[in-house]
Amino acid sequence: MSGTTAVKAALQAQRIETPSWGFGNSGTRFKVFAQQGVPRDPFEKLADAAQVHAATGVAPTVSLHIPWDKVDDYAALAAHAADVGVRIGMINSNTFQDDAYRLGSVAHPDAAVRRRAVDHLLECVDIMDATGSDSLKLWFADGTNYPGQDDIAARQDRLAEALARVYDRLGEGQRMVLEYKLFEPAFYTTDVPDWGTAYAHCLKLGPKAKVVVDTGHHAPGTNIEFIVAILLREGRLGAFDFNSRFYADDDLMVGAADPFQLFRILHAVRAGGGFDPAAGVAFMLDQCHNIEPKIPAMIRSVLNVQEATAKALLVDADALRTAQLAGDVLGANAVLMDAYNTDVRPLLAELREEMGLDPNPVAAYQAGGYAEKIVAERVGGTQAGWGA
Amino acid sequence: MSGTTAVKAALQAQRIETPSWGFGNSGTRFKVFAQQGVPRDPFEKLADAAQVHAATGVAPTVSLHIPWDKVDDYAALAAHAADVGVRIGMINSNTFQDDAYRLGSVAHPDAAVRRRAVDHLLECVDIMDATGSDSLKLWFADGTNYPGQDDIAARQDRLAEALARVYDRLGEGQRMVLEYKLFEPAFYTTDVPDWGTAYAHCLKLGPKAKVVVDTGHHAPGTNIEFIVAILLREGRLGAFDFNSRFYADDDLMVGAADPFQLFRILHAVRAGGGFDPAAGVAFMLDQCHNIEPKIPAMIRSVLNVQEATAKALLVDADALRTAQLAGDVLGANAVLMDAYNTDVRPLLAELREEMGLDPNPVAAYQAGGYAEKIVAERVGGTQAGWGA
Amino acid sequence: MSGTTAVKAALQAQRIETPSWGFGNSGTRFKVFAQQGVPRDPFEKLADAAQVHAATGVAPTVSLHIPWDKVDDYAALAAHAADVGVRIGMINSNTFQDDAYRLGSVAHPDAAVRRRAVDHLLECVDIMDATGSDSLKLWFADGTNYPGQDDIAARQDRLAEALARVYDRLGEGQRMVLEYKLFEPAFYTTDVPDWGTAYAHCLKLGPKAKVVVDTGHHAPGTNIEFIVAILLREGRLGAFDFNSRFYADDDLMVGAADPFQLFRILHAVRAGGGFDPAAGVAFMLDQCHNIEPKIPAMIRSVLNVQEATAKALLVDADALRTAQLAGDVLGANAVLMDAYNTDVRPLLAELREEMGLDPNPVAAYQAGGYAEKIVAERVGGTQAGWGA
Amino acid sequence: MSGTTAVKAALQAQRIETPSWGFGNSGTRFKVFAQQGVPRDPFEKLADAAQVHAATGVAPTVSLHIPWDKVDDYAALAAHAADVGVRIGMINSNTFQDDAYRLGSVAHPDAAVRRRAVDHLLECVDIMDATGSDSLKLWFADGTNYPGQDDIAARQDRLAEALARVYDRLGEGQRMVLEYKLFEPAFYTTDVPDWGTAYAHCLKLGPKAKVVVDTGHHAPGTNIEFIVAILLREGRLGAFDFNSRFYADDDLMVGAADPFQLFRILHAVRAGGGFDPAAGVAFMLDQCHNIEPKIPAMIRSVLNVQEATAKALLVDADALRTAQLAGDVLGANAVLMDAYNTDVRPLLAELREEMGLDPNPVAAYQAGGYAEKIVAERVGGTQAGWGA
Repeated sequence: MSGTTAVKAALQAQRIETPSWGFGNSGTRFKVFAQQGVPRDPFEKLADAAQVHAATGVAPTVSLHIPWDKVDDYAALAAHAADVGVRIGMINSNTFQDDAYRLGSVAHPDAAVRRRAVDHLLECVDIMDATGSDSLKLWFADGTNYPGQDDIAARQDRLAEALARVYDRLGEGQRMVLEYKLFEPAFYTTDVPDWGTAYAHCLKLGPKAKVVVDTGHHAPGTNIEFIVAILLREGRLGAFDFNSRFYADDDLMVGAADPFQLFRILHAVRAGGGFDPAAGVAFMLDQCHNIEPKIPAMIRSVLNVQEATAKALLVDADALRTAQLAGDVLGANAVLMDAYNTDVRPLLAELREEMGLDPNPVAAYQAGGYAEKIVAERVGGTQAGWGA
Repeated sequence: MSGTTAVKAALQAQRIETPSWGFGNSGTRFKVFAQQGVPRDPFEKLADAAQVHAATGVAPTVSLHIPWDKVDDYAALAAHAADVGVRIGMINSNTFQDDAYRLGSVAHPDAAVRRRAVDHLLECVDIMDATGSDSLKLWFADGTNYPGQDDIAARQDRLAEALARVYDRLGEGQRMVLEYKLFEPAFYTTDVPDWGTAYAHCLKLGPKAKVVVDTGHHAPGTNIEFIVAILLREGRLGAFDFNSRFYADDDLMVGAADPFQLFRILHAVRAGGGFDPAAGVAFMLDQCHNIEPKIPAMIRSVLNVQEATAKALLVDADALRTAQLAGDVLGANAVLMDAYNTDVRPLLAELREEMGLDPNPVAAYQAGGYAEKIVAERVGGTQAGWGA
Repeated sequence: MSGTTAVKAALQAQRIETPSWGFGNSGTRFKVFAQQGVPRDPFEKLADAAQVHAATGVAPTVSLHIPWDKVDDYAALAAHAADVGVRIGMINSNTFQDDAYRLGSVAHPDAAVRRRAVDHLLECVDIMDATGSDSLKLWFADGTNYPGQDDIAARQDRLAEALARVYDRLGEGQRMVLEYKLFEPAFYTTDVPDWGTAYAHCLKLGPKAKVVVDTGHHAPGTNIEFIVAILLREGRLGAFDFNSRFYADDDLMVGAADPFQLFRILHAVRAGGGFDPAAGVAFMLDQCHNIEPKIPAMIRSVLNVQEATAKALLVDADALRTAQLAGDVLGANAVLMDAYNTDVRPLLAELREEMGLDPNPVAAYQAGGYAEKIVAERVGGTQAGWGA
Repeated sequence: MSGTTAVKAALQAQRIETPSWGFGNSGTRFKVFAQQGVPRDPFEKLADAAQVHAATGVAPTVSLHIPWDKVDDYAALAAHAADVGVRIGMINSNTFQDDAYRLGSVAHPDAAVRRRAVDHLLECVDIMDATGSDSLKLWFADGTNYPGQDDIAARQDRLAEALARVYDRLGEGQRMVLEYKLFEPAFYTTDVPDWGTAYAHCLKLGPKAKVVVDTGHHAPGTNIEFIVAILLREGRLGAFDFNSRFYADDDLMVGAADPFQLFRILHAVRAGGGFDPAAGVAFMLDQCHNIEPKIPAMIRSVLNVQEATAKALLVDADALRTAQLAGDVLGANAVLMDAYNTDVRPLLAELREEMGLDPNPVAAYQAGGYAEKIVAERVGGTQAGWGA
């Protein structure tokens, strides 16, 4: 039917970005469990990301993280990406791992530290120029651990000044996306703790500043799809960092903890026009595979977003609106649930076959021998992790 | 010393508004426990509120709630207020207790219901004109209980339209303050769930629209003093609804659950200049005394705000700033804690004596015989409660 | 296939109990929205419950709530139940709506109030005798609102004494099930706030005391299926109160907020042998339909439990165990998700047809004209609600 | 007065244990900020801990963590402790940092890993024998990250078996204390997530098994003093791990986030007789000083516990009980708040002078030159941290 055709077309057009750091080792403050075959440099990370794209067909771009993915020759890195079949996506800054950043970066009380942080952000824009990336992703670990430790409003002033410096440096076709997070690593105040703070800064900066919604960065009980709907309505939704959580910022595979929430979020994206490329919403994964193998976990995550998207696209929008306007509480809910309860795996398998892909991406990856190959080949060197 | 003198002057200048409905019966969905002597009409509520002001000297105004406090002759009500020694404060609207509001009020899918709600809000402005009140306090119970029940963005459109209608009606020297609340009575989405949503609406409305921070309306873990600092920095903090909570919107006496949080909030007020009358921040109590006697509970609440304010005023701001700029985490925290750990009750007792008040307001009220008097006199009639 | 046959047999054997009060009016502390056609007495409640059973075939018993369902002649009530096609299930006590219970019931500091509460509980056992009910369901609203208000341990002593009195009164084949709840209506301490407290009391009472898990009664982040697994392992899971929530004890239709959680809970039930009638686990609904029509909401809830049960029964237990023992994190998770992602509605439709039922219970109810009939007939009288 | 004398005597008798690892580097998963002068081995840790005791007079014992504090000669370590003026306290096990423990330790699906973990625990008992420590503190990071990853009940069986093995090994005068934690590092299930689970295991083990309450290990909204009261009533409170939090297990200095909660907890300790040495409750600090200097932070933490204890001891127990039994909600709360609002710092300064200590321990430490000394002397080597 034409409905299914349209859904398939939309699914085929969807793009899900993978994070380079998701292929390296990660863990908790208690322990990082190293895995065999993990990349030792950005080139190997891109190769792994290419496996995800090869299996799924919808993950052609890879986010870099600076300085973890710093190289001497970004043109070479971009060329390598093209060679393995992917492209470089957003540039993620890091202002939390230098010793200087113990009390913050762009909001630090010491101007010299702030300068250092801004210099790093400007360098990230240079790397955007060099790689052709169009988005600078900003997450600040800045905040305080103790009441009184610093002045909340003064920190906002410093943050605003730094953001303005970087915003002014953005070139034609470049933008910045600002991420908020309730807590961690700061345990009393965080300088951008919620969407309201990110939004207020973006408003003052201008149209090239948008908000990033990381699905694990909220207080318990927060309705994320509401935020998504609001930001789309305001034209300020820049990107998603997808992952899932039961407790805090657990960074589990997206869709693993609350698949219905993921569906509701993607339903809000659809309702707000966010699947339209013109909306400029980037769909990125940002998760840590502490105990599970990384590449198949990333494939699984892409599939989870894809399945939830398929269900969101299957919602009968006309029936929904009719029930909503009639005040038919049970009827409107039933329309939504009908789509959610549909098993979309056959539809997606069909689509993959039409795209020349294996209908079962995880199995295809596992049968391909890549996992064994990297374990055998990646011997020696230093495995990539959050610190490298 | 001059420091103490300044603190005392500031404390004497502080104004804490009491809510008329805090003197009526209240409860949970499980049970409303009626109390003897509870007011039967707005006139009796004002008389009770006057007792709070008589005992504390800092609670001269009383918020009204329409329609609970609807009367035929507002001039007579205002005159009665003056007779007993208080004034009428903010006008609180109610768009959640008509049967028509089952699915919302200003954001209801049905235009007729929205019209009814807007008419009520406009009537509240009429009452502001009639009573001389300068502030319209808006809290909307609007939201949904089930995913799919209504369209999130469409509800925002309807809400924005209603707010604009009311904003345009505000006269010279009048303003509106918009309250947010995470949940209850709506259990899936709330149309103004967080400060960001309230702020975004206020920005579009204009300078006469400000945000109300109810201390019980946040998700677990939310840093309220951060929000206070941000809103003061933006010039958008309109009012507080003070109360306290351990779990949800428990509406316990302010300062009862987390007195240190109350102190931190008032420290943020002071740091942001919010005690300056020019800042236009109203300090209101909004709490339910389900099991405790209402008038002494209200007096206790006023004292709790006063004590926390005294501590906030005692913070050595210069020492704090010096430690903050030096990155002295323990030192800055210690400056704050020094003030918090101070027993300010002797200072306040002294201030009260200087003001011609009893140093112990609760004991003075209890010794005054008013409690016995209202129990004896208020026989018959219908006790005031949330529904009347 | 034989697998499907076994699943169908298990689904046909499942019993889901409905609550009499779920057919009456309910609401929040802000407003109870009355609905047309709501029952005026226990007889009409049973008639409505019978509609749910007629449509679903798996809801043959109805919980009563005393005193809301008090009648002069319980034999007549039981006979009426049989006439309309249902039976009386558990007896739920109420020690929270008398004026005497302002500061608690069985844990109240005043022995006279405790005696009154115990007398009520003993009366409930009399009603069990009269109706043939085998289970006394105990939920205590007891607790405190303010630190210091009462002594935590003393309240436990009083509670333990009351429970022992009632336990001793239980006859052959009778049991008590004790419900815990984090908060509401008490806002500081609740006397049975968590499963550990309920379990400790049950251990001391004896084998006829078991724990009730209400899915809406936990702190944010609590893993409910863990508790279910523990209680089954200990032989102390007595019953479920099913409902769903996004925030607090929202009492929404079960499965509406987090269907994956409901599935995980029922998977834990299956893994622990809880679907075996010998395990003695009662599957009850306990929810409030504040804005949606009550009978179809109850049917929808039964279907939601049934669908989640079907998915839990479809989990390939052998494959799961194999993956678990092999430490295959992604593989084990995939086995679980395969079952969850299955659309079980066709299987259930098939089962219903085999049972002589309409494959679509909600549509069947709506087509049956019962809703219109009760609106027309139930005119006059006082509608049942939480208070009656 | 004799009241004050008794309070002082109780305060002088109080013992607060410090953790050896609290003197080493710590951090979040994002970054560990190293500090100058940090210990390089257990001997240096004990020297630092001795500074805390020297300044406060109430912190004479130090918890060890194995293997971080593993030495060849425990007699030498104990002698060194005595030399610097402290003693070795509890032995803390670590079954979360070996690569083998990726999927758990005592609850791991693989028997070989479980054996390894039990062997480590038995080794800890050997170290108790060697050092004279009487308590084995058990915290298990065991759990799962994904639904389906492992069988919840099977993990309990394995855990129970391991605990029994270790319990049987305990000698005369030795005991085990079992800690629970809601989450982290496991993000879906934790095998001992709450006090109920720990309590159930202890009950089965016997009287030498008790529960540890870590103040940062609960779900949002959990009433910790309730748990303390319950465990004392059951005779199963073994120890505290004191720290404070705003969000998750933030491990901030105790008393920094919610000093009123700390007071309420210590009030529950007093009410339940937990300050009596015969009750066997160990008062331990367990916190991470990620950004603040470690020794003064530890001194501040000891003072915070001491101040909260002083306030708890000042509660007028007779007046409290009278108000409670009279159902005087406001009066009972006021009795508690009177003590809390008292500034106990003068009393503690007086006590310290009577004990021959400086009245201001933090200032005394800072004036002593120790901080400068260790920065100068501790050059080279590997700084101690959570991993060493």
